[in-house]
Amino acid sequence: MTDSRAIGVFDSGLGGLTVLRELMLHFPRESFIYLGDTARLPYGSKSPTTIRKYSEQNIAYLIKQDVKAIVIACNSASSQFLEEREFASRPLYNVIEPGSLVAASSTTTGHIGILGTRATVTSEAYPHAIQKIRSDITVHQQPCPLFVPLAEEGWEADDPLTSLIVFRYLQPLLQKNIDTVVMGCTHYPMLKNSIQKVFGASVRLVDSGKAIADLIEKDVAAERLHRKTETPVQELHLLTTDANPHFQLQAQKFLDPFEITEFELINV
Amino acid sequence: MTDSRAIGVFDSGLGGLTVLRELMLHFPRESFIYLGDTARLPYGSKSPTTIRKYSEQNIAYLIKQDVKAIVIACNSASSQFLEEREFASRPLYNVIEPGSLVAASSTTTGHIGILGTRATVTSEAYPHAIQKIRSDITVHQQPCPLFVPLAEEGWEADDPLTSLIVFRYLQPLLQKNIDTVVMGCTHYPMLKNSIQKVFGASVRLVDSGKAIADLIEKDVAAERLHRKTETPVQELHLLTTDANPHFQLQAQKFLDPFEITEFELINV
Repeated sequence: MTDSRAIGVFDSGLGGLTVLRELMLHFPRESFIYLGDTARLPYGSKSPTTIRKYSEQNIAYLIKQDVKAIVIACNSASSQFLEEREFASRPLYNVIEPGSLVAASSTTTGHIGILGTRATVTSEAYPHAIQKIRSDITVHQQPCPLFVPLAEEGWEADDPLTSLIVFRYLQPLLQKNIDTVVMGCTHYPMLKNSIQKVFGASVRLVDSGKAIADLIEKDVAAERLHRKTETPVQELHLLTTDANPHFQLQAQKFLDPFEITEFELINV
Repeated sequence: MTDSRAIGVFDSGLGGLTVLRELMLHFPRESFIYLGDTARLPYGSKSPTTIRKYSEQNIAYLIKQDVKAIVIACNSASSQFLEEREFASRPLYNVIEPGSLVAASSTTTGHIGILGTRATVTSEAYPHAIQKIRSDITVHQQPCPLFVPLAEEGWEADDPLTSLIVFRYLQPLLQKNIDTVVMGCTHYPMLKNSIQKVFGASVRLVDSGKAIADLIEKDVAAERLHRKTETPVQELHLLTTDANPHFQLQAQKFLDPFEITEFELINV
């Protein structure tokens, strides 16, 4: 059985593109619709009720486009949909549980670090998800409010200022016997090299995009989801709720090596 | 003639509180209603059309509260209301023109620096406003995307990391013969000491809040606006469109020494 429909992915803006990029690398024949709710970004500073409302509007829009699955590529939004496996009979993926699963099965010291926005950290979504898998794990959370604008500035990993900002946030996590760190915000993979440098090579960094790709792979194997096989061409539709030329430039950096050919402006 | 109604002030979030603080210091008998559109912050990354729409909704809400004047305490929003002096028969103040006037009359070298968000810089609102006053002035703009989260982090002015980030953005403006710099985002007065340190004491920093207070003072003298005198008590109503406990902590820092006793959650 095959299913030619696209996979729908949404985020408040740029960050989710790191998840989309991993999915596109992993599923080179699938088509994707990415919705960036840029008129209302960021979600990280908003309340749970508001985040839930905006997310449901985004999901409803993607369902209207007849996607076969929905990926919530935003940690703040994901924290409002934990343990929801479906939405309107489509498989629903959040970024928190796949990353938590990978981290929980990876740690040997039993100490996991979580880097995230203030909203994600306050939601306690990662500690809850991880401790439900293994209650003996100690989770150390660290909010990193400057990481999102830093990732968007695109200052290189070897820039001393990038290193200093990253070190400032990560310093409280050092010497806690942590061997696994979840990049709990979809922007953070853009800073991966700098983060890895501070923790050192012995610490494993968990990228949610990769974790979701593995989970989707399992669902395909279990026939919960079907591959698109009849046309081998990967298509990408990029939708945003606001027009912003600078956003388009930044998006191209996040999605590299994939080319963005067109943005469509929509209302959710 | 007196007018006991409050002055309405709005911004997307925290930044406008630096303007409100200046107004409260300057007009100790006036009452104020501050509306922070926190559910949709920040405006700086949004398109002109979206910013205009959100701003009009905020203004309509303040007018329903029967304010006697409206202060747009947000540069991104102000750029959509230049040359509009009234809204629904109330005096309307934006943050761009008062700061531009002060800067244009202050410079002797004829070189003015503008620090702002990317949206404010892209809008070219400051160069237009300043060159309309004095066409011989050269305006040097610099977007500073990390300044807003930096101001919200509250890292002190003597923190080397704060100095390094500020220096990184200001460096292109040094050696341009600039003697006057407009803090073209209402968050930036929180970084005033760090900014002043990089430019040195000979450069004048223009704070929009102070510039608006002077303009309102002139309008009172011209009887375009009337003071509240019958009750000498200053009242402050703080309204936000989203509930966020961390926001309340941050807001208190921005408004110091004034105490925030209550936040009211509203829908605009």
